[in-house]
Amino acid sequence: MSEQKKTNIILFSGDYDKAMAAYIIANGAAAYDHEVTIFHTFWGLNALRKDEPIQVKKNLLEKAFGKIMPRGPEKMGLSNMNFMGIGPKLIKKVMKKHNAMPLSDLIEMAEEQEINLIACTMTMDLLGLDKIELRESTEYAGVAAYLAEAEDGAVNMFI
Amino acid sequence: MSEQKKTNIILFSGDYDKAMAAYIIANGAAAYDHEVTIFHTFWGLNALRKDEPIQVKKNLLEKAFGKIMPRGPEKMGLSNMNFMGIGPKLIKKVMKKHNAMPLSDLIEMAEEQEINLIACTMTMDLLGLDKIELRESTEYAGVAAYLAEAEDGAVNMFI
Amino acid sequence: MSEQKKTNIILFSGDYDKAMAAYIIANGAAAYDHEVTIFHTFWGLNALRKDEPIQVKKNLLEKAFGKIMPRGPEKMGLSNMNFMGIGPKLIKKVMKKHNAMPLSDLIEMAEEQEINLIACTMTMDLLGLDKIELRESTEYAGVAAYLAEAEDGAVNMFI
Repeated sequence: MSEQKKTNIILFSGDYDKAMAAYIIANGAAAYDHEVTIFHTFWGLNALRKDEPIQVKKNLLEKAFGKIMPRGPEKMGLSNMNFMGIGPKLIKKVMKKHNAMPLSDLIEMAEEQEINLIACTMTMDLLGLDKIELRESTEYAGVAAYLAEAEDGAVNMFI
Repeated sequence: MSEQKKTNIILFSGDYDKAMAAYIIANGAAAYDHEVTIFHTFWGLNALRKDEPIQVKKNLLEKAFGKIMPRGPEKMGLSNMNFMGIGPKLIKKVMKKHNAMPLSDLIEMAEEQEINLIACTMTMDLLGLDKIELRESTEYAGVAAYLAEAEDGAVNMFI
Repeated sequence: MSEQKKTNIILFSGDYDKAMAAYIIANGAAAYDHEVTIFHTFWGLNALRKDEPIQVKKNLLEKAFGKIMPRGPEKMGLSNMNFMGIGPKLIKKVMKKHNAMPLSDLIEMAEEQEINLIACTMTMDLLGLDKIELRESTEYAGVAAYLAEAEDGAVNMFI
């Protein structure tokens, strides 16, 4: 029996459309029985945020970052044609019509398929994000641990 | 005899400079006898659009998207220093001086080198693009078919 | 003894945060004894610029590009929340607090780890950059030479 193939994705972007692409690829690879990991770093961490506000002790700058950054997938903007927030609404309307899954459903599907959703601890510190602000399924690791995995990946992507 | 190596590129971006990078890498890999595939998804689909307006029955939103999105490679903007559309003109001027190929020529070269130019059918639906609006050489597939290819790639990139 | 693994990164972006991600990955892979190459192309070339102004004979357009583009890593903007240049200052403040290395230190570390820092000669021409404007450690190559390397890489990324 051959070894299980791996797909490793670094999700750096905080754009709705790019995160959608990442999760579509991830879910697709998991369906092909790959072991799939999404390493969320920088703005990509926002995809893992819970959508309700959570009380955490933060300094002024961290508070500001926390307010400005989108709380969870459905608050994220588009990389293109965002039009001050109207773009995402339009896209989601069309997605609904075509029965395409919104990002939040794609993330739930990833959880069901046991895709490893990792948050980069170093950039969590930089953006002042706390573990209790992120989804329960989130795992935590530094970039070194991720790279140890990535070198055996059949597919590696930076999104 | 060893198997032919594969290079697989996902072109997500609709920026002129990023699409140029994708097609330069693709043409280079084809010159090294790789089997090369560019999977165009989301804004990257615009690189495959024909430049003339084409009559297709569309709903209001699809019509609006079709108008706003660039018709073909030479209408695309830059990811950086776009300056409301002046940036691309300046870059193309410099490219001409240095005998660098414009994106439209790079795409034709890709066709001559038999690079697989695939349009993502799911995002075509989302953006309201019809097959007759895209280049004749375009092939059509979903992300699952693409991933089946990608796992054997020597080089995989998300651009 | 097994062969040394390779990590190859194309740094296309001129954003401070994306370049940080590229150099963190590169330094991490080098720590795992990978042979690491960063191929700087388009806006990514700005990471290799020296920070002082350098006298080079340029035409008008090249002069304008040279002025507008950031001189070196610490002048680069963020891909997100840049806020007209305030974002990078805030991020660097937080980075200092968390003892995270600024980009310029990450680049020096890459030099110490003998990571190959390559500048894409074709895009240098397009942006009017001269060799004496870039770091002493920079090597020069075209995309073809890079691709010959990349096809053996364990990890390939476009950032």
